[in-house]
Amino acid sequence: MSPKITTELLKQLRQVMKNPRYVQEPVQAYIVPSGDAHQSEYIAPCDCRRAFISGFDGSAGTAIVTEQHAAMWTDGRYFLQAAHQMDSNWTLMKMGLKDTPTQEDWLVSVLPEGSKVGVDPFIIPADQWKRISKALRSAGHDLVPVKENLIDTIWTDCPQRPCKPLITLDLSYTGVSWRDKIVALRSKMAERKVMWFVVTALDEVAWLFNLRGSDVEYNPVFFAYAVIGMNTIRLFIDGDRMMDPAVREHLQLDSTLEPEFKIQVMPYGSILSELQAVGAGLSPKEKVWLSDKASYALTEAIPKAYRYLTPYTPICIAKAVKNAAETEGMRRAHIKDAVALCELFNWLEKEVPKGTVTEIVAADKAEEFRSQQKDFVELSFATISSTGPNGAIIHYKPVPETNRTLSVNEIYLLDSGAQYKDGTTDVTRTMHFGTPSSYEKECFTYVLKGHIAVSAAIFPNGTKGHLLDSFARSALWDCGLDYLHGTGHGVGSFLNVHEGPCGISYKTFADEPLEAGMIVSDEPGYYEDGSFGIRIENVVLVIPAETKYNFKNRGSLTFEPLTLVPIQTKMIDVNLLTEKECNWVNEYHRRCREVVGAELERQGRHEALRWLLRETEPLARVQ
Amino acid sequence: MSPKITTELLKQLRQVMKNPRYVQEPVQAYIVPSGDAHQSEYIAPCDCRRAFISGFDGSAGTAIVTEQHAAMWTDGRYFLQAAHQMDSNWTLMKMGLKDTPTQEDWLVSVLPEGSKVGVDPFIIPADQWKRISKALRSAGHDLVPVKENLIDTIWTDCPQRPCKPLITLDLSYTGVSWRDKIVALRSKMAERKVMWFVVTALDEVAWLFNLRGSDVEYNPVFFAYAVIGMNTIRLFIDGDRMMDPAVREHLQLDSTLEPEFKIQVMPYGSILSELQAVGAGLSPKEKVWLSDKASYALTEAIPKAYRYLTPYTPICIAKAVKNAAETEGMRRAHIKDAVALCELFNWLEKEVPKGTVTEIVAADKAEEFRSQQKDFVELSFATISSTGPNGAIIHYKPVPETNRTLSVNEIYLLDSGAQYKDGTTDVTRTMHFGTPSSYEKECFTYVLKGHIAVSAAIFPNGTKGHLLDSFARSALWDCGLDYLHGTGHGVGSFLNVHEGPCGISYKTFADEPLEAGMIVSDEPGYYEDGSFGIRIENVVLVIPAETKYNFKNRGSLTFEPLTLVPIQTKMIDVNLLTEKECNWVNEYHRRCREVVGAELERQGRHEALRWLLRETEPLARVQ
Repeated sequence: MSPKITTELLKQLRQVMKNPRYVQEPVQAYIVPSGDAHQSEYIAPCDCRRAFISGFDGSAGTAIVTEQHAAMWTDGRYFLQAAHQMDSNWTLMKMGLKDTPTQEDWLVSVLPEGSKVGVDPFIIPADQWKRISKALRSAGHDLVPVKENLIDTIWTDCPQRPCKPLITLDLSYTGVSWRDKIVALRSKMAERKVMWFVVTALDEVAWLFNLRGSDVEYNPVFFAYAVIGMNTIRLFIDGDRMMDPAVREHLQLDSTLEPEFKIQVMPYGSILSELQAVGAGLSPKEKVWLSDKASYALTEAIPKAYRYLTPYTPICIAKAVKNAAETEGMRRAHIKDAVALCELFNWLEKEVPKGTVTEIVAADKAEEFRSQQKDFVELSFATISSTGPNGAIIHYKPVPETNRTLSVNEIYLLDSGAQYKDGTTDVTRTMHFGTPSSYEKECFTYVLKGHIAVSAAIFPNGTKGHLLDSFARSALWDCGLDYLHGTGHGVGSFLNVHEGPCGISYKTFADEPLEAGMIVSDEPGYYEDGSFGIRIENVVLVIPAETKYNFKNRGSLTFEPLTLVPIQTKMIDVNLLTEKECNWVNEYHRRCREVVGAELERQGRHEALRWLLRETEPLARVQ
Repeated sequence: MSPKITTELLKQLRQVMKNPRYVQEPVQAYIVPSGDAHQSEYIAPCDCRRAFISGFDGSAGTAIVTEQHAAMWTDGRYFLQAAHQMDSNWTLMKMGLKDTPTQEDWLVSVLPEGSKVGVDPFIIPADQWKRISKALRSAGHDLVPVKENLIDTIWTDCPQRPCKPLITLDLSYTGVSWRDKIVALRSKMAERKVMWFVVTALDEVAWLFNLRGSDVEYNPVFFAYAVIGMNTIRLFIDGDRMMDPAVREHLQLDSTLEPEFKIQVMPYGSILSELQAVGAGLSPKEKVWLSDKASYALTEAIPKAYRYLTPYTPICIAKAVKNAAETEGMRRAHIKDAVALCELFNWLEKEVPKGTVTEIVAADKAEEFRSQQKDFVELSFATISSTGPNGAIIHYKPVPETNRTLSVNEIYLLDSGAQYKDGTTDVTRTMHFGTPSSYEKECFTYVLKGHIAVSAAIFPNGTKGHLLDSFARSALWDCGLDYLHGTGHGVGSFLNVHEGPCGISYKTFADEPLEAGMIVSDEPGYYEDGSFGIRIENVVLVIPAETKYNFKNRGSLTFEPLTLVPIQTKMIDVNLLTEKECNWVNEYHRRCREVVGAELERQGRHEALRWLLRETEPLARVQ
């Protein structure tokens, strides 16, 4: 990996930072955040502005360019990668280290008195704007919105914004029509006494209208906004995709409808002016609901007194609780995914000893098997296929420079998933194709104990997921071990593989309480730098639990694993398991056999079926 | 309990709210918070202004009086009590219930346009002022500081502010001299580049100067402030207690000292004007460090640009980490406390069957036995002595109206503690003096499992206590049970029984990480309304743990119980314990025998010793 040479680009950027064609007054610093105008986690190539200007293409990072300096803030996952990808024009700011200044503090320390700091108001979330603006103002500087994105002005070969065809999802997939979703949303709006709701997150637009797209890799979303009034629906979307008869039919664009369900289709780029018009026409006490992470530009379109901001939108919360149709879809998707992985692991077991399977080959093979399954759309994230020391790099993605050959001497970690039209999967299995050492088995077993502790946990209705995080660590902690990531994230239903508002992580406190129908991942791990990585991940569904008593009539919850892929028993030190844990593994494998076995049979995949049966033999615990 | 008649008092208060002698302009509402000028949890009688005006004397509550209304906000612990103690002039605002408005929302809903809302700026913490002020301003009202406390103007028989003699603590108790504490504080100030530190919490003043007082019941503190500069020390304190030769000697008031250690003693009431003088004399970049919970009055004395506010002060954090002398003192105090409780429980076992022991008698007897121990000062909080249904009232304190007789048919819960000159104790034991039902034993055993899960937990250095909270609940959750309070709080060293910045509670996120030397309580419980309450509480010391591995060289921690009082084995269903839990109980009881047994022997308390030996017989687990 050689760094990107950015001398010329930075020179150009510094010129436009002073060019009156783009800025009202010269700006002495320009902030280039990671995101797009929808605060997406995964972004389209045209939105990779920070990568363009710096060379650093990790998923998180903020660049700031001043007349003298260029600096990049990123977190521990990316210190090495950023250092490799950026040239000497750039200073790496290692977030999380004690001596690393915040962006605000750094700006204050390097800027001349009374400076202007520019940023694209569409890219920066309102809450971040507020924080940075306040800090700058108190030091005598100003944060100013620069309407035209300055990177775009110098990015001559910037790819076009994708505008791919849409997929419509009928009731058998979604369970609820978009009309009923609008009705439910309006009732939430009425409860909070708001007149308008602005949908800015791409997965929220997709979910609301029961549409999917492919504008962003791995995420079946499309570029659009929506503004829902008590009597109006406006959808801001570009391209001729609204000409597709199936889409017109789905949205009933050509039908005679009650006016409050008539969708007005408007250009994607007109959102700001339309929202400003809404803002200008508000009567007293008419509030507009926005996510507090919506862009500064859209937030500012509504006068402050009329804004109603919340960390999680009603769509985000409704979307997280899957209905029966979605749950069934997720179950089907996970069975198909398990079939593909049984095929893969059976194939790997035969091929790895030959020494010809690299991490990339294995990842491609996994995709091949998945793509044979019904309703397969694409992968749900870049496959983490890693063996030996690469397994210890938590967000590893094999590239030719790092590609390692799988062998019978090293642990192999595969974290992968797919988008099917009926659901989204995300599964991690850690395998050994030879004989694992007793230390490897010991570590694997602690991780498994943590996985089970979460999966089998029973907890009161209303419990926040972060309260379960320590359960996943307890067995590791007992031996002085740990892992430095959260334990789980929300998973969408044929939507983003990471979604709010729930999860299982010590890092958050503001997650929404778990409720039946929510779907999260359960993925503890253990990583030994330079040697190996272990992670065991299932996607699990929150379900009601039967308990002996029922304190305050609150009811209890637990998890049902949707992922049904065998956990390699060869890696388990059975003597470290309690009887309860051992029973959990056996019951889990019994379900894998029963459910996935039937599907393998149905698909005539007999060799993979034999592999499944072999891998799901019950454990016997020696007392 | 009959309610306090407040008609006349409210009339008088409403008059002074308009009286130009006290208010610059009339105020349409007046807020009466719970606290004192130091944001203490326990307050002196002269500071019980909310109780005076309303009759409601629970530990938490805020009264607001307008021209038309009088309303009281309090939480679930006090709904019943407040309803009983207040007359019909008052509306009870049940905090935590969905339909209860916040104080700000309620004010906005009842106030006439452009109202002024008054509050004593010394009583309201700066962070609360900010929140309420912002909400009122956005609705067109104003929060205004009213210098003279309006309750005091109508409280004709208001008790005097206590001004009791001080106790000096030498190095054998504190481990560190006040001079060295000042040196350490100044080094923390230098790190953060602040020139002044304002000590507002009473326990922080007491800790810093190695002094104790008795101005507030149960808390060995005294009314004082301190302002520490890089070269000056100012102590604001009233009364002739500074005339005491021992105190003068301790503080070296009459010695020739380097000027930076010379303590200037000033009147308690002069803090505001002195701080304003400090504020007025600051040069650019000279910051003043305050707790963000300091009063609005003191915070405002420092111009905004010069304030450095943190949730936890460096004294709060230093105070939490006990040194060897303090830890040894705490150990001694807990041994003495255990001696007193062995005597008590032995006495109860004999007396309860006679039917003559009430909750109050038992509490008094506990105090009597404690007071026989060396260096006993006072109780550390009001004894919770409760039997049967009273045990389910978590903050119960027996009074003649509720006083219940202990019997061989009901569970008895005793939560009590004391201040000794060498340490502070807080212990809860739940006993049955007859034959507990199998359901009572089952619940007790779940609570015990939770207690052990925390006490025996091993966790990485730097873990926040709130991450351990779920361990205490897991066994209860498995059966659909739970308890609605946190699991633990920090404990002072001959100081407040509740102290920050650490604890074990799902309710907080901003606690400071646990480190070796911190002391917290471990007190899960289970409460069945109308029947019984169970709680098992030890005070535990954070100590380094030996582990098999040491991930990232972080080191691990665990707890050592300081409390050494037998846990009633009669209440344990041994079959519900794992082998590990059973061993924990036996090892704990072995230590009680060894350590407390030796002290009982030394004190010649042979009958109590025999009780201890009986109660600490090892459990035998049937496989």
